[in-house]
Amino acid sequence: MIINIPENSDFSIHNIPFGIFSTQDRSKRVGIAIGEHILDLVAVHELGVFDFDAAVLHRNDLNDFIGLGKTVTSNVRTKIQGWLQDDDSVLAGKPELFIKQSEAQMHMPVCVGDYTDFYSSIEHATNVGKMFRDPENALLPNWKHIPVGYHGRASSIVVSGEPITRPKGQTIPKDATQPIFGPSQRLDFELEMGFVVGKNTKMGESVSTKEAENYIFGLVLFNDWSARDIQKWEYVPLGPFLAKNFASSISPWIVTLDALEPFRVAGPAQEPKVLPYLEYEGEKNYDIHLEVAINDSTVCHSNFRYMYWNMAQQLAHHTVNGCNVHIGDMMASGTISGKDENSYGSMLELAWMGTKPVQLKDGTERKFINDGDTVTMRGYGQKGDIRVGFGEVSTKVLPAT
Amino acid sequence: MIINIPENSDFSIHNIPFGIFSTQDRSKRVGIAIGEHILDLVAVHELGVFDFDAAVLHRNDLNDFIGLGKTVTSNVRTKIQGWLQDDDSVLAGKPELFIKQSEAQMHMPVCVGDYTDFYSSIEHATNVGKMFRDPENALLPNWKHIPVGYHGRASSIVVSGEPITRPKGQTIPKDATQPIFGPSQRLDFELEMGFVVGKNTKMGESVSTKEAENYIFGLVLFNDWSARDIQKWEYVPLGPFLAKNFASSISPWIVTLDALEPFRVAGPAQEPKVLPYLEYEGEKNYDIHLEVAINDSTVCHSNFRYMYWNMAQQLAHHTVNGCNVHIGDMMASGTISGKDENSYGSMLELAWMGTKPVQLKDGTERKFINDGDTVTMRGYGQKGDIRVGFGEVSTKVLPAT
Repeated sequence: MIINIPENSDFSIHNIPFGIFSTQDRSKRVGIAIGEHILDLVAVHELGVFDFDAAVLHRNDLNDFIGLGKTVTSNVRTKIQGWLQDDDSVLAGKPELFIKQSEAQMHMPVCVGDYTDFYSSIEHATNVGKMFRDPENALLPNWKHIPVGYHGRASSIVVSGEPITRPKGQTIPKDATQPIFGPSQRLDFELEMGFVVGKNTKMGESVSTKEAENYIFGLVLFNDWSARDIQKWEYVPLGPFLAKNFASSISPWIVTLDALEPFRVAGPAQEPKVLPYLEYEGEKNYDIHLEVAINDSTVCHSNFRYMYWNMAQQLAHHTVNGCNVHIGDMMASGTISGKDENSYGSMLELAWMGTKPVQLKDGTERKFINDGDTVTMRGYGQKGDIRVGFGEVSTKVLPAT
Repeated sequence: MIINIPENSDFSIHNIPFGIFSTQDRSKRVGIAIGEHILDLVAVHELGVFDFDAAVLHRNDLNDFIGLGKTVTSNVRTKIQGWLQDDDSVLAGKPELFIKQSEAQMHMPVCVGDYTDFYSSIEHATNVGKMFRDPENALLPNWKHIPVGYHGRASSIVVSGEPITRPKGQTIPKDATQPIFGPSQRLDFELEMGFVVGKNTKMGESVSTKEAENYIFGLVLFNDWSARDIQKWEYVPLGPFLAKNFASSISPWIVTLDALEPFRVAGPAQEPKVLPYLEYEGEKNYDIHLEVAINDSTVCHSNFRYMYWNMAQQLAHHTVNGCNVHIGDMMASGTISGKDENSYGSMLELAWMGTKPVQLKDGTERKFINDGDTVTMRGYGQKGDIRVGFGEVSTKVLPAT
């Protein structure tokens, strides 16, 4: 191996995720995470080993690189895997190609044209339904027929490390008829994964579940920040708006679908039977361990495999009406909760609407997120010796201004 | 006057709206509509009369031009007004500066980063509430406190003249428990106006109602296409999604706020009193006549002045939580209905859920929009001799594929 990769690194030779980084000496560009380093793809291109235009690597985002198509981008990944494992390869003896991650600044990996958030965990939807609607009929009638989703705000998606500010807004005190205004008292995270669209469609076109994976470039960790008190008052009848659009945070490295192949698993049985355009063949879920920490206390262990609706179904549904998608569009899963109470993907569920405060290591407890807290999400697949991870999305919450 | 302007033209000397056009000989660029012509701003720039970089005019969209700021763009408009009225000005004797609109192709005027749709007509919200919820409590409790809005799909906003395709999707037949799949049977228009954001904000910043107009570049006509049967089944609890995101259509010319000054009027009294961040001073509504035709039959006469929530309140609300906005973002008003039955801004209301079919000139009737129909919206302000219009957004509906 040309570069040392620590044991249990998220960025093993099996991963090779893409991101946008810069250093003091290097302007924004495409890189690949390997162990504790970043391989500078612009510098690799200068070795004359690729036959695509170098300009697509010298960008503020990955959109143009992704636009080369999977034939090219998958090939880049495979070649790099080969070269890194070959001590006589073109990458050998060239330490200037590798930058320590600790010395680089990561940026938003893609320019997000449109962002969609799904609601595809049955455990999460059931928990929310129990709390806010009818415990006996927690799931709404459409939930098992439609991968329910809604549009979110693309402009406020930020990368790990960027702090966010507690939002202010309207809320309605219990039993009051007039709203009040102030900082949200119920700031929450939502543990999600987001996929990045890798291929354009035109208006009027649809993507089938069979073709869907050709339109998905890869995945990131996604924290769908939510202000529960604002949401409760505003969301009827047109859905969440200011409760969500102040910020969403993502991990900086896009892990490709190729890298996640070893972790494919079957999804849950879907009953009642879905409409034909939502039927699919094969294993479309992924066994990816997920966890959330508040400061240094892990408060949630979940798994991407719990999703009721898979990404192929989400994309097929999104486009079945002819809605067009573009490279760089982000589609998030919705909060990923499991059956166990410690697998719930939000404070709303973990602390059950404030009735079961969550204990942290420092002796304090949380019903929601406090000013100054840092929320960190991590995720990885592990199968035997093969580990492919996402790194983290870590975000500090600043007080309302 | 250097160029002939027909009487009652929408594009009078008082207007001077901006758009993106091309011809066989001229690549996409910024132009100004005047009478039946377009003034080619790239060609005007070549006369050496502006001191900003010509590159911002040679673009696929107006974003960079708008980004010059209102000091510059308002000045361009005022100068052009002066030159057009001065037979000895720099524009005189240069017919090559003017292209017939009939010989030009219009394009999307801006690159829309994010699109938000409000729900700000009290008559529309009340009508919908009566039909789908409780006639006695048609308005939801939050409606008079919040300019309710939600995020829409930016990728599928298209310009007048581009046909749209009838969407397919899930619907639930009356009294059924299982959904069916097929072309929407209840395709509808929504008569709206959209404003274009003219200035960026950063995450965490808010725009007050007082500052809001500095952040609004101008307006277009906006047809928020809707599939009522898809919407009814999908929209609980997270709002409209596939019922809307297949297409929205806009008029190609952005009419500036400057041009709309003569048409300012007071908005309706807001009772109960709104929260302080939504209070405003002065006249913030605009008297703009609006109409909708199906083929050659006008089916609706409405007015932008009917809006309960004005644009300054919408923008203040949208950013009060720190949500950032970008130049080119589109914010639509929501369906603009008035009190009279012929002022309702959608077929849902005009034909009252299919119970009162609308008669067309050709003897046919409509409950919703048929394949092959062309829906055209027009709008203009008129005060004495001053007329400032939007032209039209006209869209043909193609059958589902």
